[in-house]
Amino acid sequence: MSEIAPPVAALIEEFAKLPGIGGKTAQRLTFFILRSPTDQARRLAEAIMRVKESIVYCSRCFNFTETDPCPICSNPARDQGVICVVEKPLDVLALEKTGVHKGVYHVLHGALSPMNGIGRKDIRIDELLKRVKSGEVREIILATNPNTEGELTARYIEQDLKREAGVSGLRITTLARGLPTGGDLEYADEGTLSRALEGRREM
Amino acid sequence: MSEIAPPVAALIEEFAKLPGIGGKTAQRLTFFILRSPTDQARRLAEAIMRVKESIVYCSRCFNFTETDPCPICSNPARDQGVICVVEKPLDVLALEKTGVHKGVYHVLHGALSPMNGIGRKDIRIDELLKRVKSGEVREIILATNPNTEGELTARYIEQDLKREAGVSGLRITTLARGLPTGGDLEYADEGTLSRALEGRREM
Repeated sequence: MSEIAPPVAALIEEFAKLPGIGGKTAQRLTFFILRSPTDQARRLAEAIMRVKESIVYCSRCFNFTETDPCPICSNPARDQGVICVVEKPLDVLALEKTGVHKGVYHVLHGALSPMNGIGRKDIRIDELLKRVKSGEVREIILATNPNTEGELTARYIEQDLKREAGVSGLRITTLARGLPTGGDLEYADEGTLSRALEGRREM
Repeated sequence: MSEIAPPVAALIEEFAKLPGIGGKTAQRLTFFILRSPTDQARRLAEAIMRVKESIVYCSRCFNFTETDPCPICSNPARDQGVICVVEKPLDVLALEKTGVHKGVYHVLHGALSPMNGIGRKDIRIDELLKRVKSGEVREIILATNPNTEGELTARYIEQDLKREAGVSGLRITTLARGLPTGGDLEYADEGTLSRALEGRREM
């Protein structure tokens, strides 16, 4: 395809590096940009550069933020004694939408995965232990994903907290498992249904 | 979601304007950019601006190009007498990959669609007639999409060429219809199978 202009080929290539964007989609996005008003394309390009220039990790919770500490960590209305541990920043967004958690967060930036060579030094476990050891923390909510890697990570952190942190009276909790609200029992997988039965409650 | 940093929200919003990118995907792309090296993000941002700055429409075939006329139109080895009419630049790429077409192109930038209010002034039909009237053209290959809008557009252009262009001896052709190579007869839809039967050939 020698007939494709180098700047067009370059943009297709860059788009294709994004996760979940294949070659065909990268082409479609590129030709969409070509047809778009220059102003709109510039807003996208500038937004990309702006996040790289202005966003840093919060030095407490390791979420992405413009200010350090982040708005959640520096909010006096949030309970610094309750830390909800999540795998990634998107999980913080999802939990914040519920408005239920009044404490703060700790973003691990990943989950343990022996299969993929991701060990404890690759995610922010040590930073969590340090926060817990510094005192004040009454509860750790382990909100990693309800899958093999997430559960492994939660189990690992639980043991670490109990052994190394040496904090007495620290509550370690995890999110409830059961049927998803709005779901249909017929379509629930075996694992979900087992956990829902095991965790059944008096009405 | 007051807790989301404005530059992050802005990038999510810009990504979500791209075709086929929903809110969740826009979030995922944004957090991917946040985790990427700044150099990689800059390459994407710069590639976006570069296509807008350096790419123009070819004044002959209306394909996107860095130089006007485009490399295909200005290639003396290409037959200026055979124009393949397509809906969009991606179709040129697809046809060029085959290496079969030795002529030039004309990119309509759309197809007629009464349902969506897209009429003849919205696509480059007049520019095609002008090229044909200017002489030299021996064949027009109507390679619009094999769907309702593409076929309507081809039929419309065919009539226009016969009526307005008033060119005697102009061949007007269209791409063959039939079973896709590598396909399975069992899975061919009714329309495809009908056209394949109607267009059957002696072996």
